[in-house]
Order: sequence, then structure tokens, then C-alpha cells
Amino acid sequence: MTVVRSTLPDEARRVSCEALQDTLVDLLGLSLIGKQAHWNVVGPRFRSIHLQLDEVVSAARAQADTVAERAAALGVPPDGRPETIAGAFSLPAPEEGWLRDSEAVRVLTEALGAAISRLRERIDATEKADLVTQDLLISITAELEKQRWMFEAENFPGES
Amino acid sequence: MTVVRSTLPDEARRVSCEALQDTLVDLLGLSLIGKQAHWNVVGPRFRSIHLQLDEVVSAARAQADTVAERAAALGVPPDGRPETIAGAFSLPAPEEGWLRDSEAVRVLTEALGAAISRLRERIDATEKADLVTQDLLISITAELEKQRWMFEAENFPGES
Amino acid sequence: MTVVRSTLPDEARRVSCEALQDTLVDLLGLSLIGKQAHWNVVGPRFRSIHLQLDEVVSAARAQADTVAERAAALGVPPDGRPETIAGAFSLPAPEEGWLRDSEAVRVLTEALGAAISRLRERIDATEKADLVTQDLLISITAELEKQRWMFEAENFPGES
Amino acid sequence: MTVVRSTLPDEARRVSCEALQDTLVDLLGLSLIGKQAHWNVVGPRFRSIHLQLDEVVSAARAQADTVAERAAALGVPPDGRPETIAGAFSLPAPEEGWLRDSEAVRVLTEALGAAISRLRERIDATEKADLVTQDLLISITAELEKQRWMFEAENFPGES
Amino acid sequence: MTVVRSTLPDEARRVSCEALQDTLVDLLGLSLIGKQAHWNVVGPRFRSIHLQLDEVVSAARAQADTVAERAAALGVPPDGRPETIAGAFSLPAPEEGWLRDSEAVRVLTEALGAAISRLRERIDATEKADLVTQDLLISITAELEKQRWMFEAENFPGES
Amino acid sequence: MTVVRSTLPDEARRVSCEALQDTLVDLLGLSLIGKQAHWNVVGPRFRSIHLQLDEVVSAARAQADTVAERAAALGVPPDGRPETIAGAFSLPAPEEGWLRDSEAVRVLTEALGAAISRLRERIDATEKADLVTQDLLISITAELEKQRWMFEAENFPGES
Amino acid sequence: MTVVRSTLPDEARRVSCEALQDTLVDLLGLSLIGKQAHWNVVGPRFRSIHLQLDEVVSAARAQADTVAERAAALGVPPDGRPETIAGAFSLPAPEEGWLRDSEAVRVLTEALGAAISRLRERIDATEKADLVTQDLLISITAELEKQRWMFEAENFPGES
Amino acid sequence: MTVVRSTLPDEARRVSCEALQDTLVDLLGLSLIGKQAHWNVVGPRFRSIHLQLDEVVSAARAQADTVAERAAALGVPPDGRPETIAGAFSLPAPEEGWLRDSEAVRVLTEALGAAISRLRERIDATEKADLVTQDLLISITAELEKQRWMFEAENFPGES
Amino acid sequence: MTVVRSTLPDEARRVSCEALQDTLVDLLGLSLIGKQAHWNVVGPRFRSIHLQLDEVVSAARAQADTVAERAAALGVPPDGRPETIAGAFSLPAPEEGWLRDSEAVRVLTEALGAAISRLRERIDATEKADLVTQDLLISITAELEKQRWMFEAENFPGES
Amino acid sequence: MTVVRSTLPDEARRVSCEALQDTLVDLLGLSLIGKQAHWNVVGPRFRSIHLQLDEVVSAARAQADTVAERAAALGVPPDGRPETIAGAFSLPAPEEGWLRDSEAVRVLTEALGAAISRLRERIDATEKADLVTQDLLISITAELEKQRWMFEAENFPGES
Amino acid sequence: MTVVRSTLPDEARRVSCEALQDTLVDLLGLSLIGKQAHWNVVGPRFRSIHLQLDEVVSAARAQADTVAERAAALGVPPDGRPETIAGAFSLPAPEEGWLRDSEAVRVLTEALGAAISRLRERIDATEKADLVTQDLLISITAELEKQRWMFEAENFPGES
Amino acid sequence: MTVVRSTLPDEARRVSCEALQDTLVDLLGLSLIGKQAHWNVVGPRFRSIHLQLDEVVSAARAQADTVAERAAALGVPPDGRPETIAGAFSLPAPEEGWLRDSEAVRVLTEALGAAISRLRERIDATEKADLVTQDLLISITAELEKQRWMFEAENFPGES
Repeated sequence: MTVVRSTLPDEARRVSCEALQDTLVDLLGLSLIGKQAHWNVVGPRFRSIHLQLDEVVSAARAQADTVAERAAALGVPPDGRPETIAGAFSLPAPEEGWLRDSEAVRVLTEALGAAISRLRERIDATEKADLVTQDLLISITAELEKQRWMFEAENFPGES
Repeated sequence: MTVVRSTLPDEARRVSCEALQDTLVDLLGLSLIGKQAHWNVVGPRFRSIHLQLDEVVSAARAQADTVAERAAALGVPPDGRPETIAGAFSLPAPEEGWLRDSEAVRVLTEALGAAISRLRERIDATEKADLVTQDLLISITAELEKQRWMFEAENFPGES
Repeated sequence: MTVVRSTLPDEARRVSCEALQDTLVDLLGLSLIGKQAHWNVVGPRFRSIHLQLDEVVSAARAQADTVAERAAALGVPPDGRPETIAGAFSLPAPEEGWLRDSEAVRVLTEALGAAISRLRERIDATEKADLVTQDLLISITAELEKQRWMFEAENFPGES
Repeated sequence: MTVVRSTLPDEARRVSCEALQDTLVDLLGLSLIGKQAHWNVVGPRFRSIHLQLDEVVSAARAQADTVAERAAALGVPPDGRPETIAGAFSLPAPEEGWLRDSEAVRVLTEALGAAISRLRERIDATEKADLVTQDLLISITAELEKQRWMFEAENFPGES
Repeated sequence: MTVVRSTLPDEARRVSCEALQDTLVDLLGLSLIGKQAHWNVVGPRFRSIHLQLDEVVSAARAQADTVAERAAALGVPPDGRPETIAGAFSLPAPEEGWLRDSEAVRVLTEALGAAISRLRERIDATEKADLVTQDLLISITAELEKQRWMFEAENFPGES
Repeated sequence: MTVVRSTLPDEARRVSCEALQDTLVDLLGLSLIGKQAHWNVVGPRFRSIHLQLDEVVSAARAQADTVAERAAALGVPPDGRPETIAGAFSLPAPEEGWLRDSEAVRVLTEALGAAISRLRERIDATEKADLVTQDLLISITAELEKQRWMFEAENFPGES
Repeated sequence: MTVVRSTLPDEARRVSCEALQDTLVDLLGLSLIGKQAHWNVVGPRFRSIHLQLDEVVSAARAQADTVAERAAALGVPPDGRPETIAGAFSLPAPEEGWLRDSEAVRVLTEALGAAISRLRERIDATEKADLVTQDLLISITAELEKQRWMFEAENFPGES
Repeated sequence: MTVVRSTLPDEARRVSCEALQDTLVDLLGLSLIGKQAHWNVVGPRFRSIHLQLDEVVSAARAQADTVAERAAALGVPPDGRPETIAGAFSLPAPEEGWLRDSEAVRVLTEALGAAISRLRERIDATEKADLVTQDLLISITAELEKQRWMFEAENFPGES
Repeated sequence: MTVVRSTLPDEARRVSCEALQDTLVDLLGLSLIGKQAHWNVVGPRFRSIHLQLDEVVSAARAQADTVAERAAALGVPPDGRPETIAGAFSLPAPEEGWLRDSEAVRVLTEALGAAISRLRERIDATEKADLVTQDLLISITAELEKQRWMFEAENFPGES
Repeated sequence: MTVVRSTLPDEARRVSCEALQDTLVDLLGLSLIGKQAHWNVVGPRFRSIHLQLDEVVSAARAQADTVAERAAALGVPPDGRPETIAGAFSLPAPEEGWLRDSEAVRVLTEALGAAISRLRERIDATEKADLVTQDLLISITAELEKQRWMFEAENFPGES
Repeated sequence: MTVVRSTLPDEARRVSCEALQDTLVDLLGLSLIGKQAHWNVVGPRFRSIHLQLDEVVSAARAQADTVAERAAALGVPPDGRPETIAGAFSLPAPEEGWLRDSEAVRVLTEALGAAISRLRERIDATEKADLVTQDLLISITAELEKQRWMFEAENFPGES
Repeated sequence: MTVVRSTLPDEARRVSCEALQDTLVDLLGLSLIGKQAHWNVVGPRFRSIHLQLDEVVSAARAQADTVAERAAALGVPPDGRPETIAGAFSLPAPEEGWLRDSEAVRVLTEALGAAISRLRERIDATEKADLVTQDLLISITAELEKQRWMFEAENFPGES
């Protein structure tokens, strides 16, 4: 029995929801490693990075919610359980333990960069399938590219 | 080199931070399965349960943050990475896919009940080690017991 | 005499404003039948549905305002007078009188579904004519698809 | 079967709810023509009138909600569907298309004046039937008379 | 010695303050049984009813305050002590212990209905004595009739 | 030329607006003497009385605004110019110079009491003329009677 | 049938919930006599005491809610019905009628003092049974001791 | 007996408080004529002028409060009673009755201009006496000059 | 050395950032001339136009910020220095000195119209290069077209 | 090495910063003795004085912050360490232990009076040195004179 | 024809408005180069400097608005057009392109320092002409000196 | 004569209030040296440390208030006068003059560490005497340990 009927044809729904499920995993993973870095960062830039990381976490959590609810709205149940995230998450992430501030900046720049590459592929993939889903992915990309720039700007070496 | 010196003796720190790390995993896992149920619940009580689940998620996220920062404050880096949660999380959780409202209520009641049992053991374990950590665990238990009651009250069968 | 000059060529303006005028009627009608159901719903789910319907009304009213002002901005006066809505509104709607909660859920699911189908046609129709108008229709569709999912999830039969 | 029992005797309920239903139509109609004028007004006083009209719409929407819920509270289902409004609405209203600012002021002054006359008759009619309903109609009249005065003051000719 | 002089003649004061004192008992009692039901309700509608009951309690508390201060303003000290309420309160009320959701809805509908009947008698009784007091009783009745309708609408049987 | 047409017949308008104009003078005068006392009060209860007087002023200013705008809405221009107030104001008022706290309490109790007597006469006078105006005067009386009670309660002699 | 299962063993639950039920009666009674004094206080300190009493009422109401919901969370239905409070309430309380300000201060100091003594016994009694309940009673005691101090400080005789 | 001792020498106090008392009369008078115009203005600019006048009233009321409390702080009781204002107020003011919008703008421009001239004289007069009082008069002048400019800009003739 | 690496290929970055830089100049220039008109406008519509111009300035400033940060996020430093704006700004702008209200409306209508034409070209130019940048330009166009309509509606001649 | 360069010549800086440092000590000391009195006051005016004292503390803390940051801005490091305050503070202050309300009022009146005298000397001293610093001292004096008046008004003997 | 008449004599107006116009250019230029640095800053202190620069921009924008409106209030139209700023702005400013954090701090310290020097000259120049204008320049100087100190404190070399 | 009677036996009161008085001195001292560092810090981390120090000050001030009011509530007058703090304060503190950012971080880490050690002893000392006081000390410790961790994390050396 169909629980939630889709407003899209089958193939369009399949393509869109695959893109949404993959994005969901990236965003939930990003929110978890963002918090991990938020708690473990040490170094002279502790306070700045500690606060900036929490903005990434807030953004990623809100986006994950929108993405998951859009999958549901298209008739496909989203999957954000711990084992699903752990199994599918593939972005660069911090090691266990204390994390030097410069390393936190470096890891986040890379994680955000990788997430953006994957989102840009999904923007292409959903163009035909569903412009509404594509528009959502575009707005997530805009936000993550802004976050990435701020970490990369922070990453620029100081005056020696 | 010690990154953050502890304000506790070694053994007290070990006992406290083990309790905190285990609680962190339970709370992060709870926040993930709470969102999973929030997105996938279906049935005539959809709206009520959908909203109630988000309150559990908000509570669990805020508590996880406090717990992790307390571990850091005691000199032990907390671990909330995806693989750590997936590996250590052991509370009852929903299956993949759409989730009938009565099932969501049942799973959350059980997950909260199991989390509370484990917290009560840690309250005993930390009594000698650190009253500050114990006090934090007491307040988390109070909140989760309130949440559990509300799901169990919701679980009571309707008039047939 | 031209009152408000258009920033679009004639044909593009015609296509865009026709799509906007039709959407305006759908949204104003939706806001009226949403309120009608909000006032007349009865049954054990009264409070949940009563509140959820008011969220549909709020969304539809805000969207109608944006749609009408966009038509004006493109140089075509929008028409939202009572007789225009009554004459052109064609979405499924509740009967007169008290409305059982399950029936309210069913009618809204259908009304939202029909509104979405019509919006998706207009998204196609405006692609060539005006990307700004298309973008507005995309964001309205995203919101209405979210609302429709929540009613359909609510519509799933309870445990017997 | 009686869905919502009345707290009034039959005749008092009939009189009160007829007054409420007629007022509901006037207020919903007023909110629609207020928005129509809000979108279509042009002329050197555009901004002032555009904003003032939105205050009429907000007031009329809030009053319509109170009126409809009072009818329901008295055991009679209110009717605010598009065809009901279109069929019963009889206040002066703007024509289709752009609306000169002085004309918008004139139409609203007349529409509010007509609504007030009809409300004053209903205040008399409900005196015996239900003082609670009468009190509600009195407070709506006070608000509409204030709105009417402001349009009429605006209507006074400028210095030539 | 007169503590607070009345602005009313003696008989008018006596009639008005008797009506106010009786209303005070009803409202304080209503606020107590509303909380009792808020805490003890169980069943599949737990969350909806739990929240709705708190709105009744808030309304009754605010109204009781206004009523008591009006009695004082008329020169008669109001009495809201525990033994006074227990001795004079006569509205239907829940039994001790857990309360099934449908039973909570039924009891509140009846308690509100009884309170409204008594208020309507007092509206008549104070017409001659003090229009200011009457106006206050009218506005309390309006609010309680709205609350009663919502419980009665909730009381309507679901689809079997 | 009629500037603002009245929604009332001539005689009803005359009676209502006379009552409103007289009330306007009382309220503006009350706001001025309330401020006068607020600035000049001295004695061990300075702070309490200083703050309470400002609440009277706020209430009187807001009521004056409503009263004046109602007169305008009925087609009669209100008059609140300094010389009009000085010429017509007849409530008890403080002398020039510092004002002992007990004297401030006494004067305000009397001024409020006199204002209330005059309002109660106008409530009777407007019953036939305009229920909307009467309702406004009733609500002003309720507020002023509350304020008067609080000053009179404050006026009760302390334990010697 | 067990409605809400307890997270405590039977004896611990019995001890905790007895302490909670007794505290609930004290707090609800305190909120009622606090309001009684708030309405009936007279004397030169009227405004100060009138406002301070409302803070006691707010605190007692919020605490009563927490206490009752904790009993429910432990599986025992709380009882806050009018007859239960009247039957079990035993703190000092004001007489009927106007209440001199110094007397209001004296009664509240005593009522709060008695409530605190009883709470301190329950803090001891729940130490073994449930640290979570004990922690709640500790925080209520802290708040009531602060309130008591302020009334006692107010009770100190003035300069003669 | 000195009620409030001054922090200034006698002559400086006399000069400062004379400047403050005169300013108080101007500001209270300005607030009364501002409201008078706010209520009685008519014409095509009704809404703009009606709102702008209320900003003058708010500013004048707040400034009057500061001015009066400064006089008190310097040991001289301020006088803002109706007869004092009526006797001493000498700024240009509107006639009784409806007030054409252009006339309202003209009168306010003149009244503000006159108030500013008088303030500038007092700024000179208080330079020696009390820099704190002078600074207050300077900030009032800045605000009134801003208000005057806006009325004068509004006063510029439109395109004919 | 690359300071901020781009997430786009070289050519796409060049096209996108050229569009963004040109838009930045238009928006910063618009915010400056909007303020210029806000300060210098005179005439009977002063207040309406003065306020409306500030809304244009707020919108343009917020959009400029978003546009500049997007250029930075794509790896190209934005340029908003005074000499850059002065050198490149080419929209219609007000002359030096006082500005009649009708002239202010006319200039803004033209400036917004010119800005919109240029934005629509950039929407086409970025379609291939970067859908994220294009989406940002679309939302800016929507806002500016709404602003332009309101000035043009205001520009319509009044009744003569 | 100069850490923060001054924007003032050497002598002007020396005079200004001496005035600022002395003011800093007065204000920090005032905030400490204000809190001391806030905690220890007893007597029938407890609540009024307790609250009024906290307003003095808030004002003094905010002013101290501004004063210290102004010294830093002028290139001289401010000194607010405990030993500095204790060594240099010379305003009248309360004794150890409970403080009768009338005594608290008396002490604060004197402390504020002394602080004002010293500030008025510094206003003279900084006139030549730095008008910006003088302006800051003027605004602090205005606020403290207002506070002093309120305590002195409170100090006036009650009716015997 | 004089558009806005001045409240100052001709020479005083000329001197004051020249000071205001020059300040306007400095502040608008400062807001532009502040944003330029906000967008282009890179380095390990990115986040701190990025945020601090936005506070300078907010302050400069608000001050520019006050300064321009004061010129208008004195009867001289302010000039803040792009070409005027570019032509007259002479404070130190950042180069085109990415800006190292230490360089951003250095440039802002210098720009603020130069702006302050020029303001201090204008404070002298306006002393005779207009104390109201002088007071405004004093308060702007206070704020900019605070901002300058914070950049200079930030500029102090770290531990090597 | 006993001013405020204690709710504790004599010995328990003595132990508790000694702990509270000592904590009061530590917290007031901490708030003073926190502000001292807030004003005097210099170096590349100025803004981060400047803001973080203000959070310590806010926390310490709020805690000091709670601690002092608890001593009063237990019947012992707290002592927070300048000379008491200066005489008894013994935590590490900054020297006079500008304070390098790394030094500020180091001093605060040590001051917080010392305060925590002393609090932990008092937690032990009050266990028998008063669980309510102990609970307050526990919550203060939790907050200070969190603050200490953040400074220590900030203290970790950067990448060389």
C-alpha cells in the first residue's frame, strides 16, 4: 500500500529522492562532525572557531530537516538513523581527541568543499526530474559555499 | 602533553568522563532516532506525535551539548563522531521506512526508558567521583522521565 | 494609457500574468476553504486539524499577496474580488456544515494535490517567459507539497 | 444528531447566528475587496492608501475569525466558502483593474459605511437574543467606524 | 469602618458582588480541575488534550483575577481561600486518578456548560445593578463558550 | 460642508459627542495632574506612588486617544487644547509644589472617584443614543474603578 | 492495569510520590492564599505587598506544575482537586476579608516558614528513594526560602 | 523646610529651573496641540500627517518628563497643571474644529519654530548656570529641529 | 598564490563574478542615491516618499552584502570602494540639492528600471556558468521589480 | 612602547584620564555599596528600596564600563582592581550588617551627593582638556542627580 | 525660494553645514571601506575582524544619517552622491583585492584616527556657530575613538 | 534582636554562611578582575578575549547576587563592601596596566582554577549543613569549570 502518494512520476521521484537521501546523509554527518570539532577545538583561535562551527551545525541541521521532509513530501521515507549515517558518510572528518584550531579550519574547509562538489552533481541530476528539488539543492549549495569561503579565508596564513 | 588540565583527581575524572561519554552517545543517538521518527511517522495522530518528537530532539541536542562540554571541562575530549554513535548506540530504535504513529510512541517510550535506566546507574557511579557531574545527570534524568511519561500517557489505549 | 509599464516583452508578460492570475484564484480559494474547514471541523482530532488548517491559511494568504503584487509589478492588475474567485475556483472543497475530521483531512489532501498539479504546469509554462515568476511558483509548490504530505500522513489509517 | 449543542434557546440561537452569518459574509468580502484595492491602487497617495488598506484587511480577517467561531460556539456551522461570499456579498466594491487612489478612498468609505449600517441593525436584533453576541457586534462596529472616519478624513479635498 | 468605599449604591453593590463572588469560585475551581485533568489525562489524544486544558486554566486564572479585583473595586473583599472554593464549588469535576482522554473532554464540556448557565443568570441579575460588572461577565461568557465549543467539537465521535 | 459624516442620527450624535467631549477633558486633565503628582510626590512611599501614578497617566492617555477618535468617527471634532482643558476641568487636583505621599494618594482617590461619578451619568445618557459609545464609557469606568480601589487600599492607615 | 509504569522500585516510588503529593497540596494552597492576600491587602504598603504576593503566586503555580508532573512521571496520579487541597492544607492562612498590609506580611512569613520546614523533612525522606525527586524539592526550598527572607525583611519594624 | 536639597548654588538653581519650567510648559502644550491636530486633521494627506503628529507628541511627552524630573532633581518642584499650561503657553496653535492637512503642517512648523527660538535663548542662559541642564536643552533642540524640518519639507508646494 | 579557491571552473567563475561585480556597483550606487533622495526630498508627499526610499536603501544594502560575499565565496575579491562605485555607476540619479517629491519618484522609477534591465541580462549570462549565482540574481530582480512597481504606482497622476 | 596612542595632546590626556580614573573608582564603589545595601536592607519599605538600589547598581555598572573604555580609548589603562577601589573609594557607605530602610535611603542620598560634587569639579577640569570626556561626565551627572532626587524624595518624613 | 528655512543666522548656518557636509563624506566613505574590508579580509583572525568591521559600518551608517538630516534641518541640502564621496573622501583606505587581517586592522586604525582629527577640528569650529551641531560631532567622536581603540588594541603584536 | 530568623539550626547556619561569604568575595573579586582584563587586554586576540571576559563578569555578577541573597535568606547579612573584598580576595589577578592577550588568558585560567578548588572544598563542607546551599555551590562550580575550560583551550599554543 502506498503511504504517501508522490506528486512526481516514478522516475523523477526516484532521481529526486536519491539526491535528497544522499544530501541528508552529508548534512547530518556534517552536523555531527561540526559539533565534534566545536567541542574538541583547542588553540589561540578557540573562541572564534568554536562559535563559527556552531553556525555550520545550525545551518546543516536546518537544511537536513528541509531535505528529509521534502523526500517524505515526494513519497519516499528518508533515512537518518545512526547506522545509515555511519555507513554512508564519506566527507573528510576530524580524528578522535583534541583538535588544533588550524586543523579544525582545514578539515571543515575540505568537508564543505567535498559536500559542495557532490551537491553540484545533484543539481545537474535533478534538473530534468524536479525543479522544486533542484531549487532546494541550489539554496543549500549557496549557504555551504558561503560557509566554506569563511573557513578558507580563516585558513590564510598570518603575518610571520 | 596535557591539553586541558582536569579539576578532578585521575580516578574521579575517569569515572565521570566515562559516564559522560556514554550519556553523550545515548543522547546523540536519541536525537537522531527522534528526527527519524519525526520525519517518517504516519497515522491519525501524525501532527501531535510529529511535534512531540521534535521536543525530544531539542532536549536531547541541548543536553548532548552540555554533556560533551562538561567532559571537555574535566579534561577528556568527548567523541560524537558518526561512527562512534553508530558503534556504541544501543537503545531501541525505529526500523527504516514509514512508521505508524502508535509504533513511534511505543519505540520512543522504550528508548527513553532504556536511556533512563542507564542514567540512573551513572548517577550512582558518579556520586563519589564528582557531585557536579552527578547533578548534571540528575537534571537530564528528570527531563527524560518527563518526556517518557508523556509518551506512555499517549500510549494508553483509546476508548473502543 | 499604460499605468504600470512592464519590465517584460508583451508575450512574456501575458504568459506570466495568466499563470499568476490563475494561481491567485487557487490560493485565495484555498485560504477560504481552509478557514471554512478550520471553523467547521469536528471529531476526536479536532484540535490538531483545527490548528494545522490555520497554517495552510496563513501560507496561502502570504503567497496570494506575493503572487498578486508580482502581477502588478509586471504591469497587469490582479483580480481577487469575491465574484472572480467564486467564478474561477475549481479545487475540491468542503460541503456546507459541520465537517468530520477525517473528511477535512481528505478534502485538504485533494485540494492541495490539485493545486500542485496546476502549479507544475505553470512552472513549465513560465520557463521561457520569465524565470523570476517561475522561481516564485517553484517556491509556492515546495510549500504546498510539504503541507499536502502532512495531511496525507495524517490520513493514514490508525491501528484497528 | 446535534453536533455542537447550543447554550442558547432555539429562537435566540437562530437570531444570533443569522446576524453572525451575515456579518461573516460582510467581513470576508471586505477583506477580499480591501486586498483587491491594496494591490491595484495607483496615484500620488499610493503608499499611504496601500498601507491603510492592509490595516482594514487585518482587522476584517481577525473579526471574521471571531464571528465564525462564535457561530460555531452557539451550535450553528458558519459558511465562508467562496460561492457563499460571492452570492451574498452586497457592499460597494471596486471595479476590475487599476484603481485611482481617490477612488479607492471613496469606495472604502462607502463599503465601510454600508457595513456599519447593517451591523447597527444586527446590534438591535440581537439585544433580546444574546447579549454576548451583541457585545461582539458592538466592538466590531467601533473598529469599523474608526476605519471609516480615517478614510473619510482622507477623502476631504486638498487645498486647490 | 469602611475600608474601600463603593462607587455603587448598597443594593447594586450587594447584587454585583454576589455575582462576582460566585463567579470567582467557579473560575478558581475550573482552574484547579483543569490542571487536575492536565496532569492525569491518558490516551491517544494525550498531547492535544493536555495542551488544550492548559489554555482553559490560563483563561480561568486571568478571569478570576479580574473578577476578584472588580469585587474589591466595588468595596467588597473577595474570598478565594481553599476552604471557600471546596465548600462552594459545584461544577462537574473529574474523579481522582488517571483520566481517559475522552472522559477529560466529556467532563470539561459539562463543567464549562454548567459555568456558562450560571454566568448567563448573573448577566441578567446585574443588568440593573451595574453595567460595568455585567460587561465583565459577558466577556467571560464569550471566552468560556468558545472553550466549550472546542471541547464539544473534540467530543464528536471519530469514523468507526 | 460636512467634513466627516456621522453614522448616527443628529440627536444621538449630539448626546454621544457631548459625553465624549466631557470625558476627554476629564481624562486629559487626569493625565496632567497624574504627571504633576508623579513629579512632585515626596515621602517614605515615594517610589510606590511615583510608579503607580505613571500607570494612571498611561491609562488616561490611551483612553483619551480612544475617546477623541470616537468623537471624530461620529462626525464631531474633539477639543483637547490647553485652554479648553483648563477651562472645563473640574476634578479635585493637587496644589502647586511638593506633594506629601499621603496627600497624593488622597487627591488621586478623590479625582478618580469624581471622574467615575461623571462617567456613570454618561453611561446612562448614552444608552439610548449609541450603544457603541456606551460600551467605550463602560470599559473606561472599569479601568478607573480599578485604579481608584488601589489608591484607596493604599490610603488605609498603617499599624500605629 | 498499570497506566504509567514507574522508573523506580515500588518502595522508592511510594516514598517519593507521597512527598510530591504533600508538596503539591502545600504549593497549590500557597498559590490560593497568596492570591487571597493579593486581592484583600490594604494599608500604606498596599502596592509593594500586592506586587510581591503575585510573585509568590507565580512561583508556587510553576512549582506545583513541576511537582505534579513529576508524580505522574513516576507512575502515581497527582491530586490537586479543590476538596483535596481544602482537606489537606495546613499552613497558616489569612482570615476572610480585608487584610492589613502588616498582617499580610506576617501571615506569608509564617506560611512560607511552615512550608519550608515540611520541605526539609521531605528532602531527608527522599534522599534514599530518589535523588531526582530530592533535587526538585531542594530547588523549591531555595526559592521559598528566598521569598520568606524578603517578607521577613519587610516585616522589620520601621523607625518610630 | 527644604524638601529636596539642590546640588547647585542658589542663583544657578534659579536660572536653570526657570529655563526648565518654561520648557516644560512649551513641551506639554506642544503635546496637547499635537494630539489636537492628530485627531482633527482632514485632507488627502490625512494618514501621513496623522502619524507624523503622533511622533511629535511622543517626543514632547518624553522630553517633558525628563525636563520636569530634572527640575525636581535640582530642588524646585515643576508645575504642569492644566491652568499653568493654559496660562503660560504661547506657541502658535490650531483653532477649534477640523483642520485641513496643509494648515496642520503650517501650524506645526510655526509652533516648532517658536519653541526652538525660545530653547536657543535658554541654552545661552544656562551656559553659566548648569552645563547639565544646558546639555539637556541642547538634545531637546536637536530633536525639535529635526521634527520642524520634516514638517517644512512636507510644506513645500507640490507640482501644479 | 590562490587565496580562496573557487568551487567553479575558471570560465564559469569569470562570468559569474563579472555579473556579481557589476551588480554590486549598481546596488551600492542605488543605496547611496536612495539615501540622497531620502534626505533631500521636499513636497506634500515628503513623509511617504522619505520612508519608501529608506526601504529601497535597506533592500539594496542587504543585497549588496549577499552579492559581494558570493563573489568572495567563488574566489574573486569584490570591489566596493568609493572610487570604484563613482567610476562605474551608470544608473539615473538625482541632481544635487533639494528634490521635489514627484522628481524623486520619477528618478527612482528610472533607476530601478535600468537596474532591472541589466540584471535580466546577467540572469541570462549566468545560466550556463552557475545556477547558484543565477538564483541569487533572480531573487534580487524580484525584489527590485516590486520596488519599481510601487514607485510607478505612486507616479500615476492624481485627480485634477 | 606606546600600546594605544592617544588622540589627545599629553597634558589634555593626563587631565582627562585622571578625571576618568577617579570617576571609575567612585562608580565601581557605588555599584558595590549599592549591592551591599540591596542585600542587607530591612524594614517596612524593604521591597521599594531593594528594587531602587538595583537600579543605581545597574546605572553605575554601565557608566563605569563607559568611563573605563574612554580612558583606554585615550591611551591610558584604567584601574578597577579590588585593592585600587578599596584604597581610593571615599564616598559615604553603609556599615556591615543589616541596614534599616531609612538608613539605606540616607546613606545613598549622601553617597550620590558626594559623587555628584566630585563629578561637577571634574566637568570644570576637563572643559579645556577634552570636550568629549566632559560630555560623558555631564551625562553621568544627569543620571546620578536623578537618582539622588528620588532617594531624597523618599527620605521626606511621613505623616505622623 | 528658500525651501527649508534655517533656525540659525547665515554665518552660523554656513559654518555648521560645512562641518556637517565634510563629516558626511568621511562617514559614508568609512562605511564603504569598512564593508570593502569586511568582504576581503583573510587570515587567521578573519572571523573577529570580519565581525568588528561590520560594527564600524553600522555605526558609520547611523551617524551619516543623523549628520545629513541635521544639515537638512539647518536648511542646507546634504550631498552623499557617489561622485561626491569619491571626489572628496581622503581617509586612508584599503587597496583592491584580498586584504590580510593585520593590514585591515592597520588601515582601519589609521582611517579612524584621521577621521577623529578632522572631527576634533570641526568641534572647535562649531563651538561659536551652533552648540547643537557641536554636541552631535562630540558624540560621533566618542564612538569613533572607542572603535579606534579597539582596532589599535587588536593591532598590538602577539607573543612571539 | 534577630532580624531575619534562620530556617537552619545554628551550626548548620554558621557553616553554610561562612561558605557563602567566602564564595561571595571570590565572585565579586572575579567580576572586578574580569572587567579589569576586559578593559586592558591588548594583542591580536583582543576582540575574542574582550568578549569572553565579559561573559565571565556577567556570570560572576549573577552568581554573587544569588549567593548573597542566600546568606540573607539563612539569616546572616552578607558583606560585599569594597574593603571586605580587597581584604579577603586571594585569587590570582592581573597587574595594573595594559595586559597582553595571552597573559589575560593565563591569569583567568588560574583565577578560575583557584576559585574552583575553593568551591569544591565548600561543597564538601556544606553537605551535612545544608543541601540547598550545597546545590547552589555545585551549580556555580559547573559554570566556572566550563569557563575555565574555554580559557585553557584558548591557551593551547598555536601552530608555529
